[in-house]
Amino acid sequence: MPAADAAIAYAHENKDRFLEDLKSLIRIPSISTLSERKGDIRRAAGWIAEQLRSYGFHDVEIAPTAKHPVVLGEHTGAGPSAPTLLFYGHYDVQPVDPIDLWKSDPFEPELRGDNLYARGASDMKAQLVAHMKAIESLVRTNGLAVNIRCLIEGEEEIGSPSLEAFVLQNKSRLQADLCLNGDSSILGPEEPSINFALRGLAYFELRLTGPATDLHSGSFGGAIANPATILCQLIAKMRDLEGRVQLPGFYDHVRKLSPAERKELAALPMSDTWWREQAGSPALPTEGDTTALERAWCLPTFDVNGLLSGFTGEGSKTVLPSKAMAKFSTRLVPDQTVDQVRKGLEAFLKANIPPTVTWELIEHASARPAIVERDSKAVRAASRALEAVWSRPPVFVRSGGSVAVVGMIQELVGVDTLMLGYGLQDDNLHAPNEKQYLPNFYRGIEATIRFFDEYAALSRPT
Amino acid sequence: MPAADAAIAYAHENKDRFLEDLKSLIRIPSISTLSERKGDIRRAAGWIAEQLRSYGFHDVEIAPTAKHPVVLGEHTGAGPSAPTLLFYGHYDVQPVDPIDLWKSDPFEPELRGDNLYARGASDMKAQLVAHMKAIESLVRTNGLAVNIRCLIEGEEEIGSPSLEAFVLQNKSRLQADLCLNGDSSILGPEEPSINFALRGLAYFELRLTGPATDLHSGSFGGAIANPATILCQLIAKMRDLEGRVQLPGFYDHVRKLSPAERKELAALPMSDTWWREQAGSPALPTEGDTTALERAWCLPTFDVNGLLSGFTGEGSKTVLPSKAMAKFSTRLVPDQTVDQVRKGLEAFLKANIPPTVTWELIEHASARPAIVERDSKAVRAASRALEAVWSRPPVFVRSGGSVAVVGMIQELVGVDTLMLGYGLQDDNLHAPNEKQYLPNFYRGIEATIRFFDEYAALSRPT
Repeated sequence: MPAADAAIAYAHENKDRFLEDLKSLIRIPSISTLSERKGDIRRAAGWIAEQLRSYGFHDVEIAPTAKHPVVLGEHTGAGPSAPTLLFYGHYDVQPVDPIDLWKSDPFEPELRGDNLYARGASDMKAQLVAHMKAIESLVRTNGLAVNIRCLIEGEEEIGSPSLEAFVLQNKSRLQADLCLNGDSSILGPEEPSINFALRGLAYFELRLTGPATDLHSGSFGGAIANPATILCQLIAKMRDLEGRVQLPGFYDHVRKLSPAERKELAALPMSDTWWREQAGSPALPTEGDTTALERAWCLPTFDVNGLLSGFTGEGSKTVLPSKAMAKFSTRLVPDQTVDQVRKGLEAFLKANIPPTVTWELIEHASARPAIVERDSKAVRAASRALEAVWSRPPVFVRSGGSVAVVGMIQELVGVDTLMLGYGLQDDNLHAPNEKQYLPNFYRGIEATIRFFDEYAALSRPT
Repeated sequence: MPAADAAIAYAHENKDRFLEDLKSLIRIPSISTLSERKGDIRRAAGWIAEQLRSYGFHDVEIAPTAKHPVVLGEHTGAGPSAPTLLFYGHYDVQPVDPIDLWKSDPFEPELRGDNLYARGASDMKAQLVAHMKAIESLVRTNGLAVNIRCLIEGEEEIGSPSLEAFVLQNKSRLQADLCLNGDSSILGPEEPSINFALRGLAYFELRLTGPATDLHSGSFGGAIANPATILCQLIAKMRDLEGRVQLPGFYDHVRKLSPAERKELAALPMSDTWWREQAGSPALPTEGDTTALERAWCLPTFDVNGLLSGFTGEGSKTVLPSKAMAKFSTRLVPDQTVDQVRKGLEAFLKANIPPTVTWELIEHASARPAIVERDSKAVRAASRALEAVWSRPPVFVRSGGSVAVVGMIQELVGVDTLMLGYGLQDDNLHAPNEKQYLPNFYRGIEATIRFFDEYAALSRPT
């Protein structure tokens, strides 16, 4: 396979520059949830557009949306008979708090051992740049055997609120045979894997207001209802002590795992002990006879993501708070829908919130759960590419996380997504000290080069 | 009663200066819970010491404690046959957050209508200065008929952590016939009242830690226990939906209200509607057949004072938090003890906290509940003084709040406390836009002048 070999040689020669390019993108603090980072969001989009232009992409555009821009662009050098890939990525990152737990500046990438530490290093700037550098390596040598259309957004970490409208408006520019999405990880540094299923997400914020202002808890305590206490009572009632979500209808459409699927999962090297150690958790919860892996990948769940009420500073303040807020989210599995969860939650809140408080429910983000075919051309091409680089066949895994765009592109553009990223399970995604294991950044470039060629080869008429 | 009349005339003449003096003290942001306010705490203590010296107090001292200093001083001009009052007060104030809800600078007193708005205006700088100005008015005219010993602390708003040791070490300097404590309020602007009972307080902070760091809720949600969810479950279990506290033994020593007491309470002009309107609450909770007034004054209760976990900023962050914190407190009534509540809480936590989290319990503040005799000289003198100023007899009320020093002084020095302050129920204590109704600051000075003389008169051998 001469095309891939020449490109791989080019990638090896340009290793140091590729790392510098990755660091340049990481240094831009493109936090999508903070309005004060709008300028950095634009800088990150501009950085990507400039790279794409330098690879010979045409119609490169930083297209505005209601919130953060999408980078578009096309490479059609493979010709009309070659397949077209929709290259999806996101250039935005999560916030960095709690900042005091970071060992180095989250936006000044620091190499410690084989790991590059920075916010966005793994999620997903290294994956995005690995795909881009695979493209660069091919166009600078024997050329790309596939056509590519880009869809690189800046809102993934806030649930892609503008993407649905954007995709609908730009459907014609997004038609492709397959969507390639690097927003994922492999099982271990030496264990290549392919994600074939993702959980969905329904993320809410509940705000309760009791008394008109904060009150003295001595003067008013007992006489007046406390919204913080009520908030805790509501949260406690949404999820039982065994972890079962108590929202009406929540489990109605959950696909049960077959005994064969449970056996396949049990064979993976992620025991309950592994999960406990990864998390640094004192002990694991129990939910019937489920394993931690089943709960993380194949079962829906409910998590509180944030709590805020009253006095949270040093010492004590005897306040009966006026307001109490919880952010919480459910992860969904096929065939649950966000709409069902929202309806169940609304019914629950209407039935359970006492008249002593007023309330507001905000829906922040949502994603459909997704599953892709395991015997498709895409999965076969990816398998071959990973096996060639890691010298072992990949294992098939699922992901507990959600990638809203996967379900969205399937529904709106009719295109399946292959997840092909090179992060690791312990990369501290969304947490302090996020990192990318650098050897897999380089291997990822090579694997993506090989994937493009394998996919083109499998697509040729036989 | 010529002594009182001359002093009252003096107080009238010096009204404007008295207000300016009150404002000077209010401008010192003496927030005891914030370590960065240590200098302001000292300035407030110094301001009081200087005033006392100017009234002819001797042995005035800003006495250090483990945390914030106590102002001591004596006025013995009434001679050995006259009674001695222990003049208790506190010069510290609560924090000001949420600062954005204040309509004016909390430490620049602003007069709007008849009210002076500022942090500490009612709790308790106006009450402290009213007592001091009563003393000034008497010493500058016909003299004080009682001897006075001062005990003015700077830690009341954080539960007086150093006071117990200080009182024990200085018992001989604190001997008195009665303690006078202005840290209280009356029923309404035209409704004088005397507090004869206070609730106690046991204030805790519970910190849970689950995973070692914040985790991605997609990667780990379901597999790993969520400390924020567990915190809500624990809080919810500590207090049922009816408001009954579920800690073991919590109600064992609660004095039941007699039908006569309930009738007396029902006759007071504080209906459930009044409570709801005071609080600006959409509706009142129910707890059996109790009234809001009974729940606020005579029943123990449980309130969440603060909640913090995970991501609390704008938008969404899909985090499974490492830590979750709640501040909560119980108000106690006779004959509950803080020790009992602590033991019940510890037993509850040991029995209910799952092994999936580690935990730490901090005790921030505590106060014994207290009741004083209604037919004592102190209460009779106060009744006469209030009736003379307001032209109507006071009603007898209780307070839902806690004044730790009352129980402490009873226990350690053997002296009963008369609460004699002139704040109002709607003064926004511990909340934004705290205020003092100024006409009652002036009436308070007059009432205190009369009280000193009435108490001296009732103490003379007949």
